Amino acid sequence: MNFNTTGEHSADFKELRKQKIERIEKILTAYLPKEEGYQRVIMEAMAYSLMAGGKRLRPMLMQETYRLFGGEGGVVEPFMAALEMIHTYSLVHDDLPAMDDDELRRGRKTTHVVYGEDMGILAGDALLNYAFETAASAFEEYPEESLRIGKAIGILGKKAGIYGMLGGQVVDVKETGHSVEKEVLDFIYALKTGALLESAMMIGAVLAGAKEEEIRIVEKAAGKIGLAFQVQDDILDVTSTAEVLGKPIHSDEKNEKTTYVTLLGIREAEKVVEKESVEAVELIRGLSGKNPYLEWLLGELIHRKK
Amino acid sequence: MNFNTTGEHSADFKELRKQKIERIEKILTAYLPKEEGYQRVIMEAMAYSLMAGGKRLRPMLMQETYRLFGGEGGVVEPFMAALEMIHTYSLVHDDLPAMDDDELRRGRKTTHVVYGEDMGILAGDALLNYAFETAASAFEEYPEESLRIGKAIGILGKKAGIYGMLGGQVVDVKETGHSVEKEVLDFIYALKTGALLESAMMIGAVLAGAKEEEIRIVEKAAGKIGLAFQVQDDILDVTSTAEVLGKPIHSDEKNEKTTYVTLLGIREAEKVVEKESVEAVELIRGLSGKNPYLEWLLGELIHRKK
Repeated sequence: MNFNTTGEHSADFKELRKQKIERIEKILTAYLPKEEGYQRVIMEAMAYSLMAGGKRLRPMLMQETYRLFGGEGGVVEPFMAALEMIHTYSLVHDDLPAMDDDELRRGRKTTHVVYGEDMGILAGDALLNYAFETAASAFEEYPEESLRIGKAIGILGKKAGIYGMLGGQVVDVKETGHSVEKEVLDFIYALKTGALLESAMMIGAVLAGAKEEEIRIVEKAAGKIGLAFQVQDDILDVTSTAEVLGKPIHSDEKNEKTTYVTLLGIREAEKVVEKESVEAVELIRGLSGKNPYLEWLLGELIHRKK
Repeated sequence: MNFNTTGEHSADFKELRKQKIERIEKILTAYLPKEEGYQRVIMEAMAYSLMAGGKRLRPMLMQETYRLFGGEGGVVEPFMAALEMIHTYSLVHDDLPAMDDDELRRGRKTTHVVYGEDMGILAGDALLNYAFETAASAFEEYPEESLRIGKAIGILGKKAGIYGMLGGQVVDVKETGHSVEKEVLDFIYALKTGALLESAMMIGAVLAGAKEEEIRIVEKAAGKIGLAFQVQDDILDVTSTAEVLGKPIHSDEKNEKTTYVTLLGIREAEKVVEKESVEAVELIRGLSGKNPYLEWLLGELIHRKK
């Protein structure tokens, strides 16, 4: 399987990725609310958490899938911002004292440490709510695409909620400190990590006018990417160093977490990453459109060292 | 001003109100997710908080405004459920230890006391997210009404978020323990209490196909109802008894809260209630449609003793 990670275009793609991240951050900034009014502290807390860096993976996958299906308009942009707001709200609430109680994220103080626990809760709520406001703003800007926008909002909601990311988070929290069976672990991974990636790629496809069958293929591919991504995370937690990873290693062992590595061992876990990622890229390549950058990106994500 | 509260129809309207509340609770139950799957605890927590009783004021105002403008279909029902979910999530998060730290609400243990603080946070998140999923489900059920549904989702988001209820909550939390000027108090009341009532009546109007100008009138009336309702709350806190009110009295004084009563005194506060409610009903009566039950209900709300 050639993911092009060492091919002649790899350096170009890496540069392209940087530019794309910059462009995405401009979109996020544009969709953030103005910091004004008696409630401006909450707008500040929203910006603080949303503009904290990161791979911007979800909006990027959405945009690239949109392009894969020939999408060329701006209607995808509010949805890119909305999805990143949802991802960010989940991090803000995860970090709260009653949840993971984390004081640092990517080397910066977490939102509740800077703004207080009450504002941490409200900032997460605000981002989740504003995500739907941002997505719904597309109705006004692109009224002729109302049907696609309505469908995309439905996907955004479902994949973020109790049948998606939030449902996975609930089970993850509930099972903390217990060892879990593979079936439950797969459930957690599919929902907590997979669902927002599915949402990203499905919304890109829907907004570009993909057929129902193509949307199902994209969903399946994204699910495989999510699983490969998460298992790679499990592997890096035992094989990488804190320097390379930018966060503490052996955290799963410390937290007594069941992972693919604890269940299957490193070698079998690596096979899962390879199998799922190969199948995901094959699914994408089987579609009528082409997006070489997207294929390269998927390889990068899965074979990443951090 | 005759609100019909003591008129010949008052007993009938009271009975009708009971029936309507029962019907609304059936709708809420129907739109709640099935309690199943590894994440079922969160569905239980959602049902626990949503089905805890109450006046069901917001869905009722939405439905009655929908009828006022001649609405007869079922498209309003997912929105009634969605709005009550949003109202409920705000109560669940308000009660958290990092916020008001309340252990009882309407005589029952609050959600985080029963399910734990982590699940309390997640149950609120789940209700907020599911509200938008529920509203978006209308696209599938009523595709021919997509434009109105899109507009209604926009209103739902805006009136719940940082420019609505959540924005009011932020300022209320921020100013707790400080005395505030009337301008700030009006801001808090308009957003924290008024915005969801505006949302209720505006969405009812939008879904029934009301004109832009009529929607603006309804918004204005709902804002006045919200202010009258909240000032009446301020008055009852000093004039009622804990028995009648079903919650502790003199809580504003204890919490050093600025209210209309502390700023203007009881007599002036009563004048505000009268003025705002009269103007609200006049605005509603000036519309082309008629809904005598709605007019009666508005009087009941404002002249209530609890």
